[in-house]
Amino acid sequence: MFKIAISARNKIEGVVTKIENGTVASTVKIEISKSANLTSMITKEAVEELNLKEGDKVKAVIKATEILILKE
Amino acid sequence: MFKIAISARNKIEGVVTKIENGTVASTVKIEISKSANLTSMITKEAVEELNLKEGDKVKAVIKATEILILKE
Amino acid sequence: MFKIAISARNKIEGVVTKIENGTVASTVKIEISKSANLTSMITKEAVEELNLKEGDKVKAVIKATEILILKE
Amino acid sequence: MFKIAISARNKIEGVVTKIENGTVASTVKIEISKSANLTSMITKEAVEELNLKEGDKVKAVIKATEILILKE
Amino acid sequence: MFKIAISARNKIEGVVTKIENGTVASTVKIEISKSANLTSMITKEAVEELNLKEGDKVKAVIKATEILILKE
Amino acid sequence: MFKIAISARNKIEGVVTKIENGTVASTVKIEISKSANLTSMITKEAVEELNLKEGDKVKAVIKATEILILKE
Repeated sequence: MFKIAISARNKIEGVVTKIENGTVASTVKIEISKSANLTSMITKEAVEELNLKEGDKVKAVIKATEILILKE
Repeated sequence: MFKIAISARNKIEGVVTKIENGTVASTVKIEISKSANLTSMITKEAVEELNLKEGDKVKAVIKATEILILKE
Repeated sequence: MFKIAISARNKIEGVVTKIENGTVASTVKIEISKSANLTSMITKEAVEELNLKEGDKVKAVIKATEILILKE
Repeated sequence: MFKIAISARNKIEGVVTKIENGTVASTVKIEISKSANLTSMITKEAVEELNLKEGDKVKAVIKATEILILKE
Repeated sequence: MFKIAISARNKIEGVVTKIENGTVASTVKIEISKSANLTSMITKEAVEELNLKEGDKVKAVIKATEILILKE
Repeated sequence: MFKIAISARNKIEGVVTKIENGTVASTVKIEISKSANLTSMITKEAVEELNLKEGDKVKAVIKATEILILKE
């Protein structure tokens, strides 16, 4: 997979397992390990432009400011 | 670790490995697997109120709308 | 209501007054005082998983970086 | 206070009670009722350009996608 | 166009060229120069309340924390 | 400049004109036209890892959900 110089601090590799399309928004499930999945909501336009489909290898990219921390 | 009913679709367990404090903002490194780390930027006030320190078990929480997707 | 140790600086108690579901996204209205309401847009999956319904007591949680300030 | 036609669904009136400046970021406390405060983190440049100071009447503006929901 | 004292660091003038409505979300295309367009996803409620339509002169407003940087 | 298949709907080319570093956060000014600049706040770690400096050609990347719309 390509190396990308992006300011976002977090990039997690995974495989697309499910895409659900609404009228303008879509949700994409990404398996990042045997027991962990991510859910992303993006525009349907992005799903189409990237030609996203199940089985695609992708990277989930997340800015540092978007990660909340929970502590017991 | 506690179960929490939160609308955010993504919760990833990890261990705090490093905290760097600025005047009002802080960055927190969270190890989520042997080869993967997350970086979170939160307020220093949050670091203090949660009494965050290295070794703490935490959950990184991320909304579905905050996950970008990269595809080669 | 439970106490939660979360890095997000802003938690506002309220009552769900209306939920509108799209295909993948939903909007939720939360009454936080007699004259003030909040509107949240989350995934429909979250509405279902939390079994959100009108009358539910909830907390709106907002990160410090997500609050813009307007001044006249 | 002025009326503003902005797509953000949430505008909450309040009074600035405390500003803390870092090198590039600042935190601003906004009292929105006798028992509730908001914390905003913005650029220090914004604090200076708006000439923000304690006692200022402001509006906190929050997009619908930025409001998480917690339920017990 | 009105001057607005807002903490968001980025305001870009443009003209609405297309609106697509889903059930609860909408996408709005904004032409900011002859060769550049922006795409915004907001609530359909916001589209209706602002009475947004093609040809409208608007400002796109973006917080500093929401701009990622890519470098080759 | 490289083509990148990213779900974010908005990519604007520009040149870095100023970087200001705090302890953990930095602000980066990007000139996108003769009369328009963007301001981004990212982690100082990102500035260092990308070796960002004045004169660098970059792309500002913004998700559709992060663009607010103002209308007079």
